[in-house]
Amino acid sequence: MRQPACLMMAGGRGERFWPASRSHRPKQLLRFGMKDPLVVQTLRRIGPLVSPARTLVITSAPLVESIAACLPELKPEQILGEPVGRNTAPCIGVAAVWMAQHFSPDCVMIVLSADHYVARRDAFLDALRTGTEAAAQGHLVTLGLNPTRAETGYGYVELGRPLDEEAGLYRVARFLEKPDAITAQKFLAAGKYLWNGGIFLWTCARILEEMERHLPSIMPLLKEYQEALKGGRPGQVLERIYPQFPDISIDYAVMEKAEDIVTLKANIGWDDLGNWTVLERLRQPDSEGNVVLGPFVGEDTRGCIISADAGLVATLGVKNLVVVKDGDVVLVMPKDRAAELKQLIGRLKEEPSWEKFL
Amino acid sequence: MRQPACLMMAGGRGERFWPASRSHRPKQLLRFGMKDPLVVQTLRRIGPLVSPARTLVITSAPLVESIAACLPELKPEQILGEPVGRNTAPCIGVAAVWMAQHFSPDCVMIVLSADHYVARRDAFLDALRTGTEAAAQGHLVTLGLNPTRAETGYGYVELGRPLDEEAGLYRVARFLEKPDAITAQKFLAAGKYLWNGGIFLWTCARILEEMERHLPSIMPLLKEYQEALKGGRPGQVLERIYPQFPDISIDYAVMEKAEDIVTLKANIGWDDLGNWTVLERLRQPDSEGNVVLGPFVGEDTRGCIISADAGLVATLGVKNLVVVKDGDVVLVMPKDRAAELKQLIGRLKEEPSWEKFL
Repeated sequence: MRQPACLMMAGGRGERFWPASRSHRPKQLLRFGMKDPLVVQTLRRIGPLVSPARTLVITSAPLVESIAACLPELKPEQILGEPVGRNTAPCIGVAAVWMAQHFSPDCVMIVLSADHYVARRDAFLDALRTGTEAAAQGHLVTLGLNPTRAETGYGYVELGRPLDEEAGLYRVARFLEKPDAITAQKFLAAGKYLWNGGIFLWTCARILEEMERHLPSIMPLLKEYQEALKGGRPGQVLERIYPQFPDISIDYAVMEKAEDIVTLKANIGWDDLGNWTVLERLRQPDSEGNVVLGPFVGEDTRGCIISADAGLVATLGVKNLVVVKDGDVVLVMPKDRAAELKQLIGRLKEEPSWEKFL
Repeated sequence: MRQPACLMMAGGRGERFWPASRSHRPKQLLRFGMKDPLVVQTLRRIGPLVSPARTLVITSAPLVESIAACLPELKPEQILGEPVGRNTAPCIGVAAVWMAQHFSPDCVMIVLSADHYVARRDAFLDALRTGTEAAAQGHLVTLGLNPTRAETGYGYVELGRPLDEEAGLYRVARFLEKPDAITAQKFLAAGKYLWNGGIFLWTCARILEEMERHLPSIMPLLKEYQEALKGGRPGQVLERIYPQFPDISIDYAVMEKAEDIVTLKANIGWDDLGNWTVLERLRQPDSEGNVVLGPFVGEDTRGCIISADAGLVATLGVKNLVVVKDGDVVLVMPKDRAAELKQLIGRLKEEPSWEKFL
């Protein structure tokens, strides 16, 4: 099997783990109490399958330097900065052109987010190997992640007829939007719905064909980039073409429209680290049910999630709160409101003098 | 009427408003959103009755410089630093000797705490004038503060037979310890119980006579100090004698034993600023019931007390919490647990590496 290549998408605005995450230091640069930032963990995780030389990172332009500092294995040209965010479809298109040029058009590209977590690395690598084989045969592959709870925050794929049951490969019957709580419960019970975590495998040639079919408007721009890669100034061209891309996800632009999509059942302990409460899944709570990162003293404090970069967080008589101290910013909210953090961020965006805290 | 003198007691360990108050910056140095620190407010408040030249401040030795910086009106010799804390009786004894020497033995001394709040300044000054006259006639006077709630955190005085009903002067029938909640309700309803706020008036000679009678062990030490004031090294003597004083309050040592104690009914809007919840009495809560000092953004946040020295405190979906950020320390607790802050401080004292946060 030829070695695949990997696109690590490392954009992100740093809102879900605010104030630990900020615009200049989004989630993929956080450690969550582990040794390395998520972006480094992601690169290391795929190491046995994809060498650093076959990795491309695409992030937002202001983050290129921070990402590069974390990933000294990568050459500068392996980290592209988007001048503006245009969601995943244009990003994947650019990566397919880049990889086709640097490696080959029939090279399998694995598409990953740099800020997700995988508990079971061996199972993950096995899945990627199986997926790479299927992708090399021409399939569009999406990893279907075993749901472990009735999650309303993810999209789902519904399993269709099997392609290779032993390998865990199935046709995708359909893609399903984020469900409500009752539907999510039904999905979990039914067994034929898997989380669509945005981990894709396909050859560069195949995804570009699909884009030509379903998103033809971007093809002239991608061609310009391809020419520049052959001997022009690709950085300048990217700068110029990016704002002209439509702002659209790969799911909406291609996956929900294409034929012959295959999903690979993967039980890999995946988590997208969606909000602060995920810390309870990442780390064992202490004897009082608290998950603590950083210096903390709690008197009669139970079921809390505490994060402090330095200094001290002290609590008395509280339960089920999230308390985060980062620099001179403090956040307090109940755990069951953690998914609404975006509303608070929205308030901060309204006031120019608060922008510095984002 | 001869001008009285004033002892401002300005010790304090900075525990009740931790982490805004610290050992190096206790409550009397805080502003609570007002223009001046409490110690400055206290000096200004008595200005029309007592000139700065007739004021003596006694604080703990490590605080002398900070207090002096706040009170440039005072000469260095008007601020004494206790090398060790010995509660109020020795402090008042030292002050009585100091004032008798600098002013005269029959000078009336007003004893105040530097970290209390008085809403009705004119009524306060009227009460002090009346109290000064009674003290000049030889009475031991304690201000009896009109209770405005069934407070369990204060001691009370029970009114006895009137001495001068028009002036509001009554004999004290007895002193009562901090009551439980039911007793406090009865006290409030009965009308003849007043808060004992620790505001005293007497002549230097009279209080020293009472000490000679009820606390004779301290008299030789006070005599040594008196001699040093006449032409020795009073600072050095204070340093030497202070550790030998008993650790005892004036209430316990003298007031509960002496005859002929008079209380003056005073409706002055007094508050000892006992814990963080007092901010709700000092400041009008906003339309969502929050009292906010410093930069704050709250989404669906009600009935909270927020204090931030700088940076930003952000809350989402919480109610009735106290959230304080000071430097790199954060405190979160429900308002109804604010009186238990001492227990948390106790935890901090257990761990040497946390001492720097106290």
